Amino acid sequence: MTSSQTTAMKSTFKFNADGLIPAIVQDAATHRVLMMAWMNQASIEATLSSGLMNYWSRSRQKAWLKGETSGHTQRVLRWYVDCDADTLLFEVEQTGGACHTGHQSCFFQELDQTGALLAVSEEKVFDPHATYGK
Amino acid sequence: MTSSQTTAMKSTFKFNADGLIPAIVQDAATHRVLMMAWMNQASIEATLSSGLMNYWSRSRQKAWLKGETSGHTQRVLRWYVDCDADTLLFEVEQTGGACHTGHQSCFFQELDQTGALLAVSEEKVFDPHATYGK
Repeated sequence: MTSSQTTAMKSTFKFNADGLIPAIVQDAATHRVLMMAWMNQASIEATLSSGLMNYWSRSRQKAWLKGETSGHTQRVLRWYVDCDADTLLFEVEQTGGACHTGHQSCFFQELDQTGALLAVSEEKVFDPHATYGK
Repeated sequence: MTSSQTTAMKSTFKFNADGLIPAIVQDAATHRVLMMAWMNQASIEATLSSGLMNYWSRSRQKAWLKGETSGHTQRVLRWYVDCDADTLLFEVEQTGGACHTGHQSCFFQELDQTGALLAVSEEKVFDPHATYGK
């Protein structure tokens, strides 16, 4: 793989009108899906150079190193692009929990066949009030 | 859980400006991430009533029953909404393969630390030319 092919591959990613691409993040050991967030070109470069997941926060409109406040970083072990080159998948080693609510995964709310929320049975893996100081 | 709460839960989903919400689809048995696609309110209702994944195709601007051409349907076993209510996760039983290329998962292209494509080692699970007749 030459360096020009390297450039070509990343340059084929299809970003949306805001310059963003969705990133699905999965625990490398358990394969549980932890979260989905958005990356721009700079987030991808920061992730590759640091080995830690970096995103673009749409609500705060700023670059975001996952774990910058909580210490709950995500170390990249493997990553993939989908067939259409418009979605990324990262397998990570998650420190603490991925969710700001204190849960391991942001997908801790299961729904039933009617769309009603089932009771959440799993425990939080950290205390969000202690971690975020609010 | 009353019927009004059921309505309330689904009505809390946050759709984007186009009325769409991303859906991550995972193999219920292996937990491999198979694909990501977009749903609107009607796709969600069609999925819940049929038990099979239905999407909204942004490129074709039409409702899309996964497997309508290929027969490679996705039966829903469990589904989840994330903490922000702006992303859905479905665990499915996949018939055939999820990807139009013939691969089991759309994420069959692994990248290295520089963003270069690694050699694809896994075999296709079906012949896309025979399946789609093109």
